[in-house]
Amino acid sequence: MSSIDSRLSRLQQKLKEKRLSAFLNWEPHNVEYLSGTRVEGKLLFMGKEKFFITTPLFAEEAKLTLKDWQIVIQRDSFPATLSRVCKKFPGRKIGFEASHLSYEEYGQLSKIKEVDFVPCPQLVEALREVKDEKELSLIKEAHTLTEAAFDHAEELLESGITEKELFAEMVYFLRKSADSEAFPPIVLFGERTSLPHGRPTERRLRGNELVLLDLGAKVGGYCSDITKTIFFGEVDQKWYQIRDLISRIQKEAVGKINPGVPCSQIDKLVRKRLKETGYLNAFLHNTGHGVGLEVHEQPVIGPKSKKILKRSMVITLEPGVYLPGEGGIREELMVMVTNEGGKILR
Amino acid sequence: MSSIDSRLSRLQQKLKEKRLSAFLNWEPHNVEYLSGTRVEGKLLFMGKEKFFITTPLFAEEAKLTLKDWQIVIQRDSFPATLSRVCKKFPGRKIGFEASHLSYEEYGQLSKIKEVDFVPCPQLVEALREVKDEKELSLIKEAHTLTEAAFDHAEELLESGITEKELFAEMVYFLRKSADSEAFPPIVLFGERTSLPHGRPTERRLRGNELVLLDLGAKVGGYCSDITKTIFFGEVDQKWYQIRDLISRIQKEAVGKINPGVPCSQIDKLVRKRLKETGYLNAFLHNTGHGVGLEVHEQPVIGPKSKKILKRSMVITLEPGVYLPGEGGIREELMVMVTNEGGKILR
Repeated sequence: MSSIDSRLSRLQQKLKEKRLSAFLNWEPHNVEYLSGTRVEGKLLFMGKEKFFITTPLFAEEAKLTLKDWQIVIQRDSFPATLSRVCKKFPGRKIGFEASHLSYEEYGQLSKIKEVDFVPCPQLVEALREVKDEKELSLIKEAHTLTEAAFDHAEELLESGITEKELFAEMVYFLRKSADSEAFPPIVLFGERTSLPHGRPTERRLRGNELVLLDLGAKVGGYCSDITKTIFFGEVDQKWYQIRDLISRIQKEAVGKINPGVPCSQIDKLVRKRLKETGYLNAFLHNTGHGVGLEVHEQPVIGPKSKKILKRSMVITLEPGVYLPGEGGIREELMVMVTNEGGKILR
Repeated sequence: MSSIDSRLSRLQQKLKEKRLSAFLNWEPHNVEYLSGTRVEGKLLFMGKEKFFITTPLFAEEAKLTLKDWQIVIQRDSFPATLSRVCKKFPGRKIGFEASHLSYEEYGQLSKIKEVDFVPCPQLVEALREVKDEKELSLIKEAHTLTEAAFDHAEELLESGITEKELFAEMVYFLRKSADSEAFPPIVLFGERTSLPHGRPTERRLRGNELVLLDLGAKVGGYCSDITKTIFFGEVDQKWYQIRDLISRIQKEAVGKINPGVPCSQIDKLVRKRLKETGYLNAFLHNTGHGVGLEVHEQPVIGPKSKKILKRSMVITLEPGVYLPGEGGIREELMVMVTNEGGKILR
């Protein structure tokens, strides 16, 4: 069975459990996951019958790439086109992506009286949590290219370079070596490293400063996500201690990773250690997240997560300590969940 | 009055017309338009009282950049945080962005019983259609840098270069000269030019082929958007005729641009001329669109548009002819609406 067929068969199973007979798929990463295409369009999955609804703009590309789907060309509005298709399937209960359809779009669809639309938040997102062999291999490839980008960054670091310049070099490198960057790189110098998601500015690198780089490549649609805080010259003794602390916490957290472990438990451990050392309030985000077609996807590794780790999930662990006005340190690893525990991607 | 104050005062006027006393602003470009910041967060505009709701991740950046807004830090969920703020304003009618809030998000907000949420699709988008002097100057700057990117592309065109390579060079150039690209450049060679929005591949450029480039820079948040079809060597006679035809149609359309003219009328003219020459079915998209904080924004220049041209709108005109398997030509200009008619940006 192809990976797409296996995904559709898992989708069908989920629909059966929810007593639904169809699913309307809207969100581009979910469309890619279920059909293999990055062509713009929406999927109407009816089990045996599968429709790809797209505008004339993308019709040629859709026909070239989607052999197993009936291509429906939307010449008027999407609701009008969908209504025409639905008329052939009266009484169907169609699940829809409640987290992605807007209030206004739902209002338009709910006027199609032949069928019922049933909210299904995060249904395909949940299928995407566990990766297959092909996905794991693309993520590893993206990871390797991201490590190469870090090597390249270290070569470029010199007094006077601006955050924006290094940012442009990182994008260029990732677009040449991978398909693209997985997200706009985070490039922060000096005291600006205390902004966890700061954008690059004209700030120039000086000697003896922190450099925070958060980089990711995308390969075959799949993302990687790594953060390193580099000491450019000699920095205050405190930062060496904080970086050691973060690395120790990260190592301990990797040791706890196993199928069956609640994601919130990993987060709890990280927070406990940061609390013991007085840095809990300086940690401003979740401990990690899944990585796949999106750079941030399920499962979230955070205090409120209800997810349980499963084999072949790929997650990040990214504890950080941010001291406003002074600087910050974040170290982010990618970890694969295996039956033998957490395996750090290298 | 600062440009932000003038936007907020126009928003207040719109709210008054709709008998609303507040507006919840969610979409990032609308947030940027009304507050001047690109920091992630949501705006709750209450007239005199203005709240910027953000997570701890962005709190420091928000405090640094948003002096006129009360910063509310979201420590639990967004609905819980919003509910806390709304409790101080019982009975308020709050407009929300019905095109951007998801069905699920609306479901959560509607549980806040102290206030009423009223759907307001495209309210801030409509304010954004007409540009002020500052916006026009940024768009012009972005346009100039995009023209420079085309000059650079012409220097790089040589047999053997791949679409992906030229794509990476274009992104690099735009990130070095402007803030960034306004959208992923479209770079298509040969028969692939018939895909209006095709993605770059390993396809290599050969002699005597079409090259379609759709490029845009972003400066200070504002976009530009230009398409040119370049003849690399000698191409079939037909393409010269089609390009001449498109340029003539474009010129005629620019001549019709004036404040007060319906957008649909411009589109109608383009379609009429393409029909006369037998190419109507080869034109797969709208004639144009507004450009500003987003590369595609209101007004749409298409058959169904109900918008009327106004002074200081900036729109594209981009007729195209796409022949599957053979190739395509699109030429895209940016035009400013002035009291003296359409003024092509150069």
